[in-house]
Amino acid sequence: MNKINNTIAGIKPLDVKAMEEAKIRQDNLTKPRGSLGQLESLSIQVAGIKRSPRPQIIHKVIFTLAGDHGVTKEGVSAYPSEVTPQMVYNFLRGGAAINVLARQVGAKVIVADLGVASTLERHPELKDKKVAMGTHNMAEGPAMSRQEAIRSIEAGMELVEEELTRGIDILGTGDMGIGNTTPSSAITAALTGADVATVTGRGTGLDDEGWRRKVKVIQKVLEVNHPNPKDAIDVLSKVGGFEIGGIAGLILAGASYGVPVVLDGFISGAAALVAASLAPQVKPYLIASHQSVEEGHKKILEYLGLNPLLNLDLRLGEGTGASLGISLVEASLRILDEMATFTEARVSEKI
Amino acid sequence: MNKINNTIAGIKPLDVKAMEEAKIRQDNLTKPRGSLGQLESLSIQVAGIKRSPRPQIIHKVIFTLAGDHGVTKEGVSAYPSEVTPQMVYNFLRGGAAINVLARQVGAKVIVADLGVASTLERHPELKDKKVAMGTHNMAEGPAMSRQEAIRSIEAGMELVEEELTRGIDILGTGDMGIGNTTPSSAITAALTGADVATVTGRGTGLDDEGWRRKVKVIQKVLEVNHPNPKDAIDVLSKVGGFEIGGIAGLILAGASYGVPVVLDGFISGAAALVAASLAPQVKPYLIASHQSVEEGHKKILEYLGLNPLLNLDLRLGEGTGASLGISLVEASLRILDEMATFTEARVSEKI
Repeated sequence: MNKINNTIAGIKPLDVKAMEEAKIRQDNLTKPRGSLGQLESLSIQVAGIKRSPRPQIIHKVIFTLAGDHGVTKEGVSAYPSEVTPQMVYNFLRGGAAINVLARQVGAKVIVADLGVASTLERHPELKDKKVAMGTHNMAEGPAMSRQEAIRSIEAGMELVEEELTRGIDILGTGDMGIGNTTPSSAITAALTGADVATVTGRGTGLDDEGWRRKVKVIQKVLEVNHPNPKDAIDVLSKVGGFEIGGIAGLILAGASYGVPVVLDGFISGAAALVAASLAPQVKPYLIASHQSVEEGHKKILEYLGLNPLLNLDLRLGEGTGASLGISLVEASLRILDEMATFTEARVSEKI
Repeated sequence: MNKINNTIAGIKPLDVKAMEEAKIRQDNLTKPRGSLGQLESLSIQVAGIKRSPRPQIIHKVIFTLAGDHGVTKEGVSAYPSEVTPQMVYNFLRGGAAINVLARQVGAKVIVADLGVASTLERHPELKDKKVAMGTHNMAEGPAMSRQEAIRSIEAGMELVEEELTRGIDILGTGDMGIGNTTPSSAITAALTGADVATVTGRGTGLDDEGWRRKVKVIQKVLEVNHPNPKDAIDVLSKVGGFEIGGIAGLILAGASYGVPVVLDGFISGAAALVAASLAPQVKPYLIASHQSVEEGHKKILEYLGLNPLLNLDLRLGEGTGASLGISLVEASLRILDEMATFTEARVSEKI
């Protein structure tokens, strides 16, 4: 827990001076003030995060964290758990959606095993941060021990630190874990106080009956475990997942090192709830790439006060939405950096 | 009018076979079916437009069309008309928002004078398609003659045809014209039957009083001119603008030559209303990049049945939203083309 506390202690407020300078520049660029909407506010936010009035982005990194979930035994997912390791290999071969979208935006994808329930073949590009062979079935008891929850967050922090030497100018979060919308809904219900049915979706494709079963399972999970909403580590350990803890670690470390954190969808959102519960000062570092189809994600975005950039009915995860979001952050910074001012272009200002 | 009729006659229905093949491939890629939401449907639409199950995009072209508006004499804009030519020069020097965003996505920007109210300096990259020195003040009578309206549409078609020899795989629309939200609102009210106040926004930054004045001006414009909603050329000539007619021409020609048309915001939307009124079969070729802050744009998107990809509170025009939209179309096609199938990746399918 020392590592987590030290990292949190390192999270500074955004640099107000850099934000003011960025705002002044935005207002002097050859366009009506505010006419680029969220692209303007985004550039000002990133100026504050990166403590520079004209920040540059070179190294873009998407972290895709994998873990398995014992609760799949309750029939909460349309896909079998064996798909988690299969998709990890797909990531490593470059054939998954996240590989395609990361290539488009020029981002590196770092794949890490936080808790896949099988022994993965070693691969030079696979980070081994396995906390355990999947979580326990949380419908019967805690998903993991408190120590394992802490370890999963620390593992996420290590992933950021190990890459920092090569440079991270912007960080995208991503997940892979069959069954992981179930812990995400449970975390959302526990930490926001929302009713389970309102924060439970169809995951990768449940039918009506499957959805009703999933709601009941999550209600049972919460009854069996009584997670303490004032203690995010307790919530994570009882009703979470290893990749979710890992993503919370990515978020806290990103903020601590002054890196803008572009969140993917629902699973990353649940991790952000955990991170923001541990350290509310992390919120200004967060950028919500999109609003997922998953019901609970909207609740999370409202709770965290985040405005999603995209609304494309995505529900895949992996970091796919984050990758598209990084492209929009880049657009916002290029506008800030490359556009001519009214004076430079000799364009008349408002009447 | 012959050119317009011939172009419209060349617009084919989308290629259903290519769309079916694209759909089958999407369903076999290593992700739950439908989990990439609009990125999936977009790729299928473009497959139908380009008549290929795995279409490629190389040449991306954004057309930014400029024109002036006599109605600015009524005080409907926060900026003086002299800004139109100043911004044209800014486009040609590469200092405007559209230049920055087009560079990011790798698109060529073609700038054309459809009806700027001053004589522009010649420039190798400025297309001279001037129909007249700005429109007349439509609060006092028709904005232009019927012949000029036809000419403006034809000029837009010519711009597409002249670039086709170099290749256009996707086309983005854009506009520059101080005061052009006023004709766009007037066209929207005339062609959709909506109440003026519900389709009138603040343009580049009117205050409350300015907005009320603008609504009154547009009401007067419609009373004075009585545009015939069954005759889009009549509407364009009486309450439109040269760049709006030009964009309608871009849209019709794009569809006719099998090019996906990525619409920018409100002004492009008004042009799309004109185009779709002349040729409803153009609609499947349209992609709405974003939903503008301008009130009337939402009405247009609903009326045309278009689902915007982005909602970033943009209200700049120039093709800026279209540029971001092209990036998302590319993402959708890369997904379709580059992702591994379940069989290729040996990933298990749904239970």
